[in-house]
Order: sequence, then structure tokens, then C-alpha cells
Amino acid sequence: MNWKSEIAAAAERIKGHVQVTPVIETRGFGLDFPLEMKLEHMQHTGSFKARGAFNTLLSCDVPSAGVVAASGGNHGAAAAFAARALGLPAKIFVPEMAGPSKIALIEGIGADLTVVPGEYANALQQARAHEAATGAMQIHAYDAPATVAGQGTCFAEWEAQGLQADTVLIAVGGGGLIAGALAWLQGARKVVAVEPETSCALNAALRAGAPVDVQVSGIAANALGARRIGEICFGLAQGITSVLVPDEAIATAQRALWQERRLLVEPAGATALAALMCGAYRPEPGEKVAVLICGGNIAPDPFAG
Amino acid sequence: MNWKSEIAAAAERIKGHVQVTPVIETRGFGLDFPLEMKLEHMQHTGSFKARGAFNTLLSCDVPSAGVVAASGGNHGAAAAFAARALGLPAKIFVPEMAGPSKIALIEGIGADLTVVPGEYANALQQARAHEAATGAMQIHAYDAPATVAGQGTCFAEWEAQGLQADTVLIAVGGGGLIAGALAWLQGARKVVAVEPETSCALNAALRAGAPVDVQVSGIAANALGARRIGEICFGLAQGITSVLVPDEAIATAQRALWQERRLLVEPAGATALAALMCGAYRPEPGEKVAVLICGGNIAPDPFAG
Repeated sequence: MNWKSEIAAAAERIKGHVQVTPVIETRGFGLDFPLEMKLEHMQHTGSFKARGAFNTLLSCDVPSAGVVAASGGNHGAAAAFAARALGLPAKIFVPEMAGPSKIALIEGIGADLTVVPGEYANALQQARAHEAATGAMQIHAYDAPATVAGQGTCFAEWEAQGLQADTVLIAVGGGGLIAGALAWLQGARKVVAVEPETSCALNAALRAGAPVDVQVSGIAANALGARRIGEICFGLAQGITSVLVPDEAIATAQRALWQERRLLVEPAGATALAALMCGAYRPEPGEKVAVLICGGNIAPDPFAG
Repeated sequence: MNWKSEIAAAAERIKGHVQVTPVIETRGFGLDFPLEMKLEHMQHTGSFKARGAFNTLLSCDVPSAGVVAASGGNHGAAAAFAARALGLPAKIFVPEMAGPSKIALIEGIGADLTVVPGEYANALQQARAHEAATGAMQIHAYDAPATVAGQGTCFAEWEAQGLQADTVLIAVGGGGLIAGALAWLQGARKVVAVEPETSCALNAALRAGAPVDVQVSGIAANALGARRIGEICFGLAQGITSVLVPDEAIATAQRALWQERRLLVEPAGATALAALMCGAYRPEPGEKVAVLICGGNIAPDPFAG
């Protein structure tokens, strides 16, 4: 696949449907080097997922049965938002661990929502059954070319905004976002995968030499808790640097983003920064680093109730 | 005073001490036109006040007794932050209505803090007494040339970032920020002053033909509740458009900033947007508008306790 041209086409396709998210250069966070950040949590529905959802829906003929998605929360919200914007019915399955904040977000968009006991994989199973029964089109959360190409637009946009970094740190769940980064950047910059110790499907796959099932839990599980890394991501991620961070480091980074820059983000959104703050990734002297802030759907929602 | 050169000099002086804050173009908020926003609440200590504080301290010889400031909270935090960064002692007086979130913010910076019963004017009186008794230098919250020039750098920066708007909406408390805007823009763009109905010192002064005392209360009082508009602001603001918004409109805008763009801001930070959302200011067809998001120190602090 010619990813560069796929992503360029995706960017053209979703233009006007997605938010161009801001970038900053900043110091702080106890680090002795500056950071670039892209504030992608300001995307529609609070995460990068809107990019892949719009690209998927705009690059094919959607059946009259509409769309279906399984999601820890963020992808479901994005799929529901994109479907509503395009006048399509949407059926979303989320696991219980999505939590009340993300469930309320999806309900607020107006999608038909089912909450499934257990983890993400169970929701995916039900979404597949719904797809088979109704003919609705599945929007995969991370392991489909249109999803990956959509997420890749985030990095095309960032480069157009003047990204300077040698190295970009990205949180990984199922791998759609980092696959988009690798597909766009094509080795032009170093990409560091950051996962919680409690949800580390990519790290486990790289160590095993193939995607393997992992247990998922912890502070960022509803966003990063994929049981198995996507095949597309695994193919693109060979040889990349993969680091793990403890949940406490994620919580510390989340608090620092608020205290230092008034960025209120969910744990997944602070995970890449956590790798720098806790030393899981230490840049070389002079190495310019950037962090993607990927999600802002914090629980509890500050305006809930 | 040659404000343009004062502000350009201030920008040079405070460079590296203040954060370049990001800008976005966005749609939504129930409006049928796009908006530019500058996210100045991501400034150090969560408001534009750091600009004036650094400019004040860097443009004179500070006495060994250090600095003193009276503040509804945001200016005190900025003065304390700037003083700490420059190795100077700081004494801050805040009124009770600053609230626990802003009081904790100032304490966290490490300043010597006194909480004064009543409103801002009482804190200012004590700060003046401290100045007289100790020889400490007062950093005025809004009515001093160095403060106004510092706040003006926000608009110089925004224009350098490509501001397109014909009209910029700005929340007004004591008037330092809007004075900086008027001093920099010099009529090149329309400036709209937005005040809560419950704290409207500029609107009252414009109607009376001179600064007059007003009662202050309501949702944004600790940031916008100046009893009397600054003389510098009043002088610069002759003939500008001044609108008032009810507290409920501010709360609605505050909620919308979170729900649509994941921007968590204090009521003052949502006040300018409120004027558009509630129709207190209605742009002409084709008029390009921008909103400054000025403060993010929400109460309660989402990480308090």
C-alpha cells in the first residue's frame, strides 16, 4: 500500500469535517529540554478517532443499515459523531469499562448504544454479530486501512504545522494511531511507542514476534486496553522503540498537564508524556522530542451531573 | 505614550519567560460562523496575567523588599510565579472570594499569601499598606503602563500567529487585558468589551463618562470583579463596543468549551464566547470574529484533594 498517498487522500477527504488541532512548544514537566505537543484531544469528541471514522465513512458507500462500531469509548464517540454528521444511523457497542463519562458522551451524540459486560473484545464480538445480522458496516477501531490512513492525517497535519522533532512519542492501544504515524513518517522521524505496563499489546507482540493476547487493566484501559495489537500496526512497527510506563507515572503526567498547561486529559492522553517524565524514554542530548496528546475524555466529566 | 513600541519592547523583554499560547480556528457553539480563539489560559499560572507581571519586574530595578500584589487570584498567581522565576520575594494579598482553588494555586507557587475578608478593593488597600511599610514594589493588576504593555504582547503574538478577525471579543475586569489589546491594535481591528452583568466596571464607566464604583458579584467575580475600571483602560476604551452577558450565559459557554473542544476554563475565560452564544454581540454577515480565552483557573481544581 502507498501509505503516503492514502493519507494525503484521507486528509483531503476529511477536511472540514475534522478540527485542525493546535500545537505548542513548551518547557516544564520537570524536564531539562523543550517539548513540542499536538493537542489532538481537542479533536471532535475528544480524541484523534474522529479522523479514522470520517475517513472510513467518506471512502466507501455506506449500506442503508448504517454503521456499527465496538469501542472502549473514544472510537464509539467518534463513529457516532461522524455518522450523525453524515446522516447515517450508528450502532455502538462499548464494554462496561468504558465508564459512565464516555457512555454519556456517546449517548449525548444520539447513537444507539449497547453496554456489554467485560472488556473490549466482548464488545467487538457483539459488533461483529450485529454486522452479520443487519448488514451494517463495521468501522474498525484500529485495524483497518481506512482507519489507519485517517489517523495518519494527524501527522501530516502536524508536519504542515512545522513539527521540528527528531522523535515523536505516541501512546498505543490497538495501534491505529501509531500505525498512522509510522505510515506517514516512513522513518523520517523516530517513533516511540508508549504503553502502560497494564495494557501493552504492542510491546508483548514485539517481544513474541507476533501479535499475542495480553491481559488488560489499569488506569488507561478503556482507551489503551486492546487485548491484541492490530496486524497493520504490527507490520509497520517492526524495529521501533517500545517502552512501558507504570500507571502512577501516567497519573503524575496527567496532573502535570493540568497544573502546568491547563490541559485536562484522560490517562491515555498523558501516557506519552509519562514516558519522558518517568525516564522510560530518555532522549539523547540535543534530541528534539514531541508528544501527541491523544485523548481528553476524562472521568468523571467535569460537567457531569 | 507610544504603545506600539512599548508593547514590542515588552514582548522582547518577556520572551522565554512566558508561554506562546496556541490559536485555533473552530466551528460550533451553536454559531453559524467560524471563530478564531487564542488559548491564553494555557499561559503560565493559567491566565494572561503572567505577561504583565514579567514585564513589570523586568523593566525596573526591584527593591530588596521584593514585590507585592493584590489580586482576585490570577494576578497574584502570576506575580508570585514571575517573582519566583526571577528570584524575588513576593507578598500576595487576595480577597476571600478568590476561592480555595486560586488560593491553593498561589500557595503552591510558594508566595507569602494573606487572605483578606471581602472583595478585591480590600486586598488592594492592604497591598498598598504593605508597600508603604516595607518598600516592596507593587505590581498593579491592571492599571499601570508596564502591566498594560505586558498584556498587549498577547495581541502582538496573536497577529504574528496569523489572526484574521475583523473583531476581537475580550472579557473585561479591571481592564488591563483589553487596554493592552486597544494599545496594540490602535483601531486596526474592532475590539468588543464583554462583561458580566454582575461585574461591569467598564460598561458603567462608559455610560457615566468617567470611572465609577460598581458593585461586583456573580460567577466570574474573582477574575472580573474590579470595583472600578482602570484609568488607562478608560482612556483607551472611548467609543468601543461594550456588551453585558448574564451569568447563566457564561456558565453555558463554559460548559460548551469543554463539551465541544475539551477546553476547561474558568467563568472569566468563557465570558467573551458567551457574548456570541447568547447574542449580546451579533456579528454582521461576513464579519470575522475572534475570542480570547483568558483564564483557566476553574474551581474546584479538578485535581484538588
